[in-house]
Amino acid sequence: MSLPATAHALTNGTSGAAVVKSKTPIPCASRLKAGRALAQDVWSIYSAANLPPDCINLGQGYMNFAPPVATNHYSRPKGRLRLRQAIKEFYGPQLGRDLDVESEILITSGANEGEYSVFVAFLEPGDEVIMFEPFFDQYLASVAFNSGIPVYVPLHPRLDKDKPSSNDWIIDFEELRRAITPRTKMIIVNTPHNPVGKVFTLEELEKIADLAKEHNFLVMADEVYDSLVFDEKKHVRIATLPGMWERTVTVGSAGKLFAATGWRVGWLIGPVHILYPTLAATTRIVFCTNSPLQEASAVGLEQANARGFVEQQRNEYEERRAVLTEGFDRLGMKYTMPEGSYFVLLDISPLDWPEDYPFPESVLGRGKDFKACWFIAMEISVSSIPVSEFYCEEHRSIGEVYARFSFCKDVGTLGHAVERLQGLAKYLTN
Amino acid sequence: MSLPATAHALTNGTSGAAVVKSKTPIPCASRLKAGRALAQDVWSIYSAANLPPDCINLGQGYMNFAPPVATNHYSRPKGRLRLRQAIKEFYGPQLGRDLDVESEILITSGANEGEYSVFVAFLEPGDEVIMFEPFFDQYLASVAFNSGIPVYVPLHPRLDKDKPSSNDWIIDFEELRRAITPRTKMIIVNTPHNPVGKVFTLEELEKIADLAKEHNFLVMADEVYDSLVFDEKKHVRIATLPGMWERTVTVGSAGKLFAATGWRVGWLIGPVHILYPTLAATTRIVFCTNSPLQEASAVGLEQANARGFVEQQRNEYEERRAVLTEGFDRLGMKYTMPEGSYFVLLDISPLDWPEDYPFPESVLGRGKDFKACWFIAMEISVSSIPVSEFYCEEHRSIGEVYARFSFCKDVGTLGHAVERLQGLAKYLTN
Repeated sequence: MSLPATAHALTNGTSGAAVVKSKTPIPCASRLKAGRALAQDVWSIYSAANLPPDCINLGQGYMNFAPPVATNHYSRPKGRLRLRQAIKEFYGPQLGRDLDVESEILITSGANEGEYSVFVAFLEPGDEVIMFEPFFDQYLASVAFNSGIPVYVPLHPRLDKDKPSSNDWIIDFEELRRAITPRTKMIIVNTPHNPVGKVFTLEELEKIADLAKEHNFLVMADEVYDSLVFDEKKHVRIATLPGMWERTVTVGSAGKLFAATGWRVGWLIGPVHILYPTLAATTRIVFCTNSPLQEASAVGLEQANARGFVEQQRNEYEERRAVLTEGFDRLGMKYTMPEGSYFVLLDISPLDWPEDYPFPESVLGRGKDFKACWFIAMEISVSSIPVSEFYCEEHRSIGEVYARFSFCKDVGTLGHAVERLQGLAKYLTN
Repeated sequence: MSLPATAHALTNGTSGAAVVKSKTPIPCASRLKAGRALAQDVWSIYSAANLPPDCINLGQGYMNFAPPVATNHYSRPKGRLRLRQAIKEFYGPQLGRDLDVESEILITSGANEGEYSVFVAFLEPGDEVIMFEPFFDQYLASVAFNSGIPVYVPLHPRLDKDKPSSNDWIIDFEELRRAITPRTKMIIVNTPHNPVGKVFTLEELEKIADLAKEHNFLVMADEVYDSLVFDEKKHVRIATLPGMWERTVTVGSAGKLFAATGWRVGWLIGPVHILYPTLAATTRIVFCTNSPLQEASAVGLEQANARGFVEQQRNEYEERRAVLTEGFDRLGMKYTMPEGSYFVLLDISPLDWPEDYPFPESVLGRGKDFKACWFIAMEISVSSIPVSEFYCEEHRSIGEVYARFSFCKDVGTLGHAVERLQGLAKYLTN
């Protein structure tokens, strides 16, 4: 394997180490230095930008023959210009910033790999990362792989509500404050939230932002469901709050936006002192993201606004949500009405099964939700996911009340599922 | 982001931790356990394989509407079946094995990310990884990011030869043996070698294999240039030597095979006890590899043999190599004739430049090769890469004699480069 383009071009000629030192409030991990990833490398020094314009490039293993289209070859580690330009146009107005395509946008191999790269770039052994429960389960591994310590703060569902929405899953800010220590390096704010569907309010984000500034930690704003916010709710980007741009990395996803999860194209938006070390990390992990689907994503973003794509897709998802939740209503089961993303948490507490039901070993000794999901799948052939998986051991009891059903299926399929779900009626107590 | 498929399906229902414990000669890193990546997860338990055949899947966030073709959606973390099948057919005969597509083949987001995942999966802090110099520079960072220690063993060029080939870069096996310690976890064997072009001989590989067995370490066989072996040389796969399958992971690349470096599709072939932890790692790092270009790679592999693709491509590269090396011959400059890959190392020692030549700061204080590459690019507009970058500080003097020129350009471009290179004649001493 050979490296065709510079790993360190974000700063275009400036020494990366200097940029990182002079501007960042949070130093990146020493492992980047040990891996020579912050020093200026040969690819930067001998990059086309520094050499005569007609220089024949035999330095890099960069074929100039077939497959003929350039989109089959390496992209720059920071991503293809057309896509970065499209992201600037699409997200810049939402962030209220004239984004610099060279230093404030970074393409990654899916949002997942982008987040992983941030952890590689910033976590020192023992650094703590706060995440709200239920959490997207990749966070835990990504933090732990990079010697970080996950710290859990549960969202608390208001059990008194008859028809709870995701807004009824609330943060206990005293609890959040107690979770902060001198080792807190980062908090992950996933809004709209998977799997709760919660769209964090301005007030909540302001309080989180104040804590981040007071205790000097980073915010990873995982906003991959930003295009799926329902009921006229407003998606607020924490990066737009006062003083927050400097310490926030905003995560987006072509897979989520375009319902093309197999493209593996994601992006990070943030200040150079966050993206520069992260570029160094992603360059070593994947080198660059696949070129053809970066181009496809760019085309999508370029046309999304003019075609009203986001509105249309959201309306379609609202219809899907309605089909599924009306099915639960008919059953008389409680669930959390999601304001965003594409999951509904069903309260499985009234579900009852025969004491001698033949559960497999894999669900024994886990939360009640593990049994419920198994029972539902076996009895009526609709599958769901137990929510206690997204909690630490200590907080498992909060999650085990719920099963997560996704509604990213066509209306016909969801209709079939709803019919089958009615078969649960005979297993409901009270 | 949501996870649509199982992270741990390699063993299909067997508990992963048990498999790893019972069969592996080399335990995987404890960070996988800390990251919950070895325990059976919800995606495995509720995977379609375990549920009723007509079960409606609302568990996973797996859209079943447009974009309509399945190839736009998540693939399984281990890769799409069609590609794994094609790899089995293509590589199985070369490895002399009936490969199990479920457990012995793993698709990764480029060979690079595959190698990174192996390091995540296997390195404990302080574990040592032996690499031959010059080394592919991603190795260093990938090892260091995962708390490993790179240990360098130089290939020694035979300077007495007038027309050296890459086979004249030799391993001092006493030196290699001295580099082995109780902390040696792995050796990287890159054949055909970047940037030397060396195709390791059967005898060399046997000696390396004996050391790996004697001292119980893994072999990462980076064979991404396996389709580019010239002059009727034979590419030997170390995994095929007696007792080596169990401790070898063989790395391949669609980008290198099909000259499509931007596809980011690579693969690992090896025993389940190596691939299972590696799957756990790659699942957390990228979740899965892009689907459309996995399909494209499968199509390519399926047709490669019938169309004589590899032979034709190799002939084209041999022609390119001839154009470039004849250019060096005309100049009377010494170089290493590569038996594989697509790089030529030019001996730059006879090159002389004015003492007051205006070199930029970035090349000062580095090896002579840094100045040489800069000087060549500026004076005659052909770029190359200094080889000392691929050595540790201690061994830098071996590398600084060389500049690396790639010949993965069309013959016309290479012809132009050769014409320009003649302009170096007036700067040559003796």
